[in-house]
Amino acid sequence: MKTTELKIIDGGVCAAKGFKASGVHCGIRKSRTKRDLALVFSAVPAACAAVYTTNLVKGAPLEVTKRNISDGYAQAVICNSGNANTCNADGIEIADQMCQLTGQALGIKPSDVVVASTGVIGQKLDITPIAKGIPLLVSELSKDGNLNASEGIMTTDTVRKEVAVKFSVGGTECTIGGMAKGSGMIHPNMATMLVFITTDAAISPNMLQKALSSDIANTFNMVSVDGDTSTNDMVTVLANGMAGNSLITEDGPDFDAFMKALNTITVSLCRMIAGDGEGATKLLECITEGAADKQTAKTVAKSVICSSLLKAAMFGADANWGRVLCAIGYSGACVDVNKIDVAFKSAKGTIAVCKNGAGIDFSEEKAKEILLEKEIDILINLNSGNQSATAWGCDLTYDYVKINGDYRT
Amino acid sequence: MKTTELKIIDGGVCAAKGFKASGVHCGIRKSRTKRDLALVFSAVPAACAAVYTTNLVKGAPLEVTKRNISDGYAQAVICNSGNANTCNADGIEIADQMCQLTGQALGIKPSDVVVASTGVIGQKLDITPIAKGIPLLVSELSKDGNLNASEGIMTTDTVRKEVAVKFSVGGTECTIGGMAKGSGMIHPNMATMLVFITTDAAISPNMLQKALSSDIANTFNMVSVDGDTSTNDMVTVLANGMAGNSLITEDGPDFDAFMKALNTITVSLCRMIAGDGEGATKLLECITEGAADKQTAKTVAKSVICSSLLKAAMFGADANWGRVLCAIGYSGACVDVNKIDVAFKSAKGTIAVCKNGAGIDFSEEKAKEILLEKEIDILINLNSGNQSATAWGCDLTYDYVKINGDYRT
Repeated sequence: MKTTELKIIDGGVCAAKGFKASGVHCGIRKSRTKRDLALVFSAVPAACAAVYTTNLVKGAPLEVTKRNISDGYAQAVICNSGNANTCNADGIEIADQMCQLTGQALGIKPSDVVVASTGVIGQKLDITPIAKGIPLLVSELSKDGNLNASEGIMTTDTVRKEVAVKFSVGGTECTIGGMAKGSGMIHPNMATMLVFITTDAAISPNMLQKALSSDIANTFNMVSVDGDTSTNDMVTVLANGMAGNSLITEDGPDFDAFMKALNTITVSLCRMIAGDGEGATKLLECITEGAADKQTAKTVAKSVICSSLLKAAMFGADANWGRVLCAIGYSGACVDVNKIDVAFKSAKGTIAVCKNGAGIDFSEEKAKEILLEKEIDILINLNSGNQSATAWGCDLTYDYVKINGDYRT
Repeated sequence: MKTTELKIIDGGVCAAKGFKASGVHCGIRKSRTKRDLALVFSAVPAACAAVYTTNLVKGAPLEVTKRNISDGYAQAVICNSGNANTCNADGIEIADQMCQLTGQALGIKPSDVVVASTGVIGQKLDITPIAKGIPLLVSELSKDGNLNASEGIMTTDTVRKEVAVKFSVGGTECTIGGMAKGSGMIHPNMATMLVFITTDAAISPNMLQKALSSDIANTFNMVSVDGDTSTNDMVTVLANGMAGNSLITEDGPDFDAFMKALNTITVSLCRMIAGDGEGATKLLECITEGAADKQTAKTVAKSVICSSLLKAAMFGADANWGRVLCAIGYSGACVDVNKIDVAFKSAKGTIAVCKNGAGIDFSEEKAKEILLEKEIDILINLNSGNQSATAWGCDLTYDYVKINGDYRT
């Protein structure tokens, strides 16, 4: 599932018409060089859709966002890093204050603000630095603010994560872009994933939600860094319609074009998130083909990408295909083990290591050369049908343990 | 779930009447100092019960054992380390040969032999060293052979794992003992768990199977080192009746006494296996109380013990209770988050860290002191009922990555 068909452009969340952004250091994080507050603003109200963590323990900002966008519209996103505002008695109150302050500073309704937080759980989030930071964010809003904004949502992320593409809806050129934070935080706690997507396409809130809900089943829900589902995961899309296409209100070619562009953005961000997993040295992509049904393909791909043993083997560039078979075997998927083929692939080539569920002779030297690359595909063919699925993950490294084992203080 | 009620005695698998054992180096493993073949022998045929991995990819020895004990009886156990004999075209044939050679050397039917293997997957197991080793094993069978036998099944285990207790069935003194290998292997591949239990109690094959199947649901199935279910996991019990109690053929006080003794053995071995998990520095025990039903208690305990983030935090002696709540939240169990209390406990004391789903003030110094111990209890109260469950695991460390990331050769 490569993203070569639509041309990647610069601009991230600011690429689409009418969107500006900014990011500042307001003081939630101690280091003055780390931005910890980000704002995205649309010149006009935008259709808004979102998906949230399935964790029963939900961050307060998610509850407030859910309420605010229940009418299908929003105009701004405010997000802080350094504190998750979760499991705090006053969490809802603080998240509400963030929306009120943002609404005041922008001259929009507080209920048109999406709010998100990422960082340590169970520590009170002080509104004071945020109250100081918001006017600054508003004064710095600009068309190239995507750079600072995508920094402002980072925690232990080692690189900014953003992407944008142009696409056509019924002959009208539209743009969609997004930014994400991946796995990790400065006071390590959990691998929260936050994704903010913006587009100037005109699409109704219902169809936008349909597009997002359908897309994430095959993209963000197929990413795993460590198997822990955060309390604060959230993906939102704002669609402000400023491209001027005729409003997408139903299934059809226009909706398909939008879905394809959205998928290009989400797959790109999935790869960035997985490749920048905590402590990761490699992006792993597990592609399962030949499944009897879609769910089997997904279950197998995700089980393999989640296996600690396989992740450690990939860190060691070890073509330990037994661990792939093992992870398929305990996945819960109904598969015929004796039909399974496994191969490893990277920029250095492809090597088959298992055929019909049993090992085959292969060059360990060639396998090592392939597995020493930074992007590894684990190719599985179940030879039982024509359904496929992709899952994204990363290797398990000393640094994962270091990042997550270090004392919080 | 401590094991203080029945007195622990020496002897492991040889503690019960009529059982002898031995362990030798036959040459499967390269290091001459590592025993790699073990034998357990009962003077008379014994009722036999077993449980096997749920992995669809099953080691050949499991298939052969299943067939051999289908009549409910066995008299010997042969087990090698260094090679799992799994995903090999000739796996069944080799496992059968191991039984034939063992049967010949002992003068018993090959179909009365339980066979097990643990080690690397997908590499042909050469019968030659085993054929040489079996006569040696038989000549070395002795009443204190449990020491060598429990070494012979070790892979990356750092300590031998065995335990035994005496108990009474209807006034007759009986003995039960066992040995286990935990998580790891010299050519790291997966965390196979093998457990062999022996008893001189007289119990019918059906009741023995009932006891074992019931017990493991709360013991071995509640242990996790890394979430990967091996292809070769197996637990067997041999009961030779030489204690002379009246045969247990139905539920009642005798069966209850047997169940209690069995549980003492299995809980002890669970704690040993978890505490000696690959790279582990700590034994973690998660005790969930106050659940509305047993399954909720088990789901919560197991989710917490499996969380990579929590395991890394425990390695760092970090009282990061947010990760406990997070793991409960994504466990799939239906719980009221706002009722959850969390505390950490060790030999240095107990410290409450979360009350009603929110953080409470606690001394970080005291928490650190408690968490620096080698055995940590994670105490969860759901405050929604009276069901409880315990799960066992270990911390996630640099050495786990090292053991499993190193190249096989």
